[in-house]
Amino acid sequence: MRTVDLIQRKRDGLELSREEIEFLINGFTNGDIPDYQMSAWAMAVFYRGMNARETADLTMAMARSGDQMDLSAIPGVKVDKHSTGGVGDTTTIVLGPLVAALGVPVAKMSGRGLGHTGGTIDKLEAIQGFTVERTREQFVRQVSDIGVAVISQSGNITPADKKLYALRDVTATVDSIPLIASSIMSKKIASGADRIVLDVKTGSGAFMKTLDESIHLAQAMVDIGEQVGRETVAVITNMDEPLGLAIGNALEIREAVDTLRGEGPADLEALCIQFAAYMTVLGGQAASFEEAKDRAEQAIRDGSAIAKLKQFIHAQGGNASIVDDPAHLPSAPYIVEVPSESDGYIKAMDAESLGITAMMLGAGRATKEDVIDMAVGVLLKKKVGDPVQAGEALLELHMNRDEKVFVQEMSDRARQAITVSQERAERTPLIQAVVTKQGVQRF
Amino acid sequence: MRTVDLIQRKRDGLELSREEIEFLINGFTNGDIPDYQMSAWAMAVFYRGMNARETADLTMAMARSGDQMDLSAIPGVKVDKHSTGGVGDTTTIVLGPLVAALGVPVAKMSGRGLGHTGGTIDKLEAIQGFTVERTREQFVRQVSDIGVAVISQSGNITPADKKLYALRDVTATVDSIPLIASSIMSKKIASGADRIVLDVKTGSGAFMKTLDESIHLAQAMVDIGEQVGRETVAVITNMDEPLGLAIGNALEIREAVDTLRGEGPADLEALCIQFAAYMTVLGGQAASFEEAKDRAEQAIRDGSAIAKLKQFIHAQGGNASIVDDPAHLPSAPYIVEVPSESDGYIKAMDAESLGITAMMLGAGRATKEDVIDMAVGVLLKKKVGDPVQAGEALLELHMNRDEKVFVQEMSDRARQAITVSQERAERTPLIQAVVTKQGVQRF
Repeated sequence: MRTVDLIQRKRDGLELSREEIEFLINGFTNGDIPDYQMSAWAMAVFYRGMNARETADLTMAMARSGDQMDLSAIPGVKVDKHSTGGVGDTTTIVLGPLVAALGVPVAKMSGRGLGHTGGTIDKLEAIQGFTVERTREQFVRQVSDIGVAVISQSGNITPADKKLYALRDVTATVDSIPLIASSIMSKKIASGADRIVLDVKTGSGAFMKTLDESIHLAQAMVDIGEQVGRETVAVITNMDEPLGLAIGNALEIREAVDTLRGEGPADLEALCIQFAAYMTVLGGQAASFEEAKDRAEQAIRDGSAIAKLKQFIHAQGGNASIVDDPAHLPSAPYIVEVPSESDGYIKAMDAESLGITAMMLGAGRATKEDVIDMAVGVLLKKKVGDPVQAGEALLELHMNRDEKVFVQEMSDRARQAITVSQERAERTPLIQAVVTKQGVQRF
Repeated sequence: MRTVDLIQRKRDGLELSREEIEFLINGFTNGDIPDYQMSAWAMAVFYRGMNARETADLTMAMARSGDQMDLSAIPGVKVDKHSTGGVGDTTTIVLGPLVAALGVPVAKMSGRGLGHTGGTIDKLEAIQGFTVERTREQFVRQVSDIGVAVISQSGNITPADKKLYALRDVTATVDSIPLIASSIMSKKIASGADRIVLDVKTGSGAFMKTLDESIHLAQAMVDIGEQVGRETVAVITNMDEPLGLAIGNALEIREAVDTLRGEGPADLEALCIQFAAYMTVLGGQAASFEEAKDRAEQAIRDGSAIAKLKQFIHAQGGNASIVDDPAHLPSAPYIVEVPSESDGYIKAMDAESLGITAMMLGAGRATKEDVIDMAVGVLLKKKVGDPVQAGEALLELHMNRDEKVFVQEMSDRARQAITVSQERAERTPLIQAVVTKQGVQRF
């Protein structure tokens, strides 16, 4: 088998066999196939695509390229949830305890943030003492004991995907649905997921800007799940504005606590209940989506969700008193309100731009080496559709510096991310579509 | 300027500016742009193409990437001729002296052969004493003195093209008309050509298999010439069978001598007269194509062409007595006739397969390190359309070994390259089309 022939076959729109795809991925991973051949192949895939069978074979070849988590010692169906990346996305921290409270084991490996999107692992470290490093044995035991554990991705998970993604990033071959879909799914499968629920973000703040594109990506991932025996449900959610109100690590932990207590932002609560319901159905702990949704709401009302959160924080060495007393979370020395300059309605909030503002305040990393300040960030006071008066706060900046120039620059940047219009603005529905093996349902 | 953005722009079908193309080529040549980005860009060009302006800018960026021959000291318009590569193509050795005899200076740098196509430089070395190494000063002086010199390509000519071609070869990005056209034209321009005549081979033995493809390639090269002020004429010639009768170095030198004397194969003579005429018109030494053609025929009849050949061989240190006595050329110890197995007509001759046979006999190199045997090769006794009887020779193998197994293998291989049919077969016209800045003329 010659690599150049495989590139040519894909270039000419022909299908590659499983053996051919494995030859490419294995050769690339072990260095036999050079980057310049792989990037030419990726560009051919960009134009020619891959069918469902090829995409599934690519996914499995990447999933098998390194370590694979064996979660079989944990009783029950392991359901993992993945988001294509958003701003102020606190769902994992809400969903872990909530779903565990409903009887579905949550054994989650998560990542750190880079750029304008935060990482669950960073957010959890805002809780004093919380450790995200666990041996595989400790991880499995914790999930078996209390139903939930969230640890930092460790070991050599999907090295083929890491290497291919780095190459795609510099060769303009990121925007390929089969390559995006297989990248996401390979990591979930290598992490030991039996079933998968996906949050595919759509809109100005997301990688996929239109609903149609998002549905295509969702469909590709649901197809992979079908082909490789990991039932997958994809929920397409609006990212025209940040999710919830908080952007920043400790601010989001506090918001997660509020949400598990039933006192969180409406959009975040609605989304978490929806996802918890899909996970519970896929995990075999509810007969129908409606039943699962009722049980999720009940777990929030009856305090079992918040109790599970305390148990989870405690199990990972964190100070669980933050649940009852948020004063135990880091807080910023300076809080600056950014007021609206005019009366009107919030028409749009640029999630990406607000994410970058939070990063510049110190809540995220511009480069891998940057150190995060857990206390800082952005706290929205308004959401799209809300009325606002001139002088009324649009948001708060939680800052660790108060130099005038810096405050001014950050305030201006944050204000520019928010569009106030004279006309009443409509909010885009949070959940836009759901894709399952049965098909696409649009809302 | 970021390379990834330029790849993306081309990927999305946008035009790249001259500055952007120079950035890519200069960065690639000096190693700032890695192979994996260049191969992704080349694949994007494969799908999206380049317009005439982009192709011309690419050509000039590559032409300027290394040394450039300055032939301005040679009086007159320097016209270069290039063939896209064929089997048994002896035209350069005929054209050099013929065109020089018509008053157009021929300052040619040529290459060695690899695989089934021979190289002019190798063929000339079949003449005892002939040297292809000359300093630039010697080269320029010889052309000024006698009107013709052919030397081996030396120095650092178009390093960008060399590097890009090597990369395209292993990334399935060879088959792109703008990339092929700019590769050929950049070398001609860096070699100092003022005007260019191209022999674009078409058919089973050529890189371009169909007339339409060949016209596209020809058009792209004529367009480049137009854009960069090097008037270019492209003649599309049939490569369904080898040109002339000889395939092998000394055999082809002998054939060139015969042709310059007016005793060569009809197809080779016709082609050489045609090309000589275009070169003479472009070189400003004839007012019309018809006049130039008459003068070329005249130069063969009156002996001035053969006299120029002697002068040329002598000037480069070769034994010019081979012109009058071909016994001074190397000759093979064994000549084996390959007979036809049936009566009929020659329907097809697989030029590539016959070229490989000659290479296996020792006339060419399978790898760059192989040493050529000047004496060996294939001498055709028939051409497409000729009648043949069972037992009559189709061709001769000129061999330096006569082991039975080897003779049998080579005979079988050669015979399989020739199709004899019961029906009378039509010969494809040798000249299929001519492309000039005025347009395309098909024959």
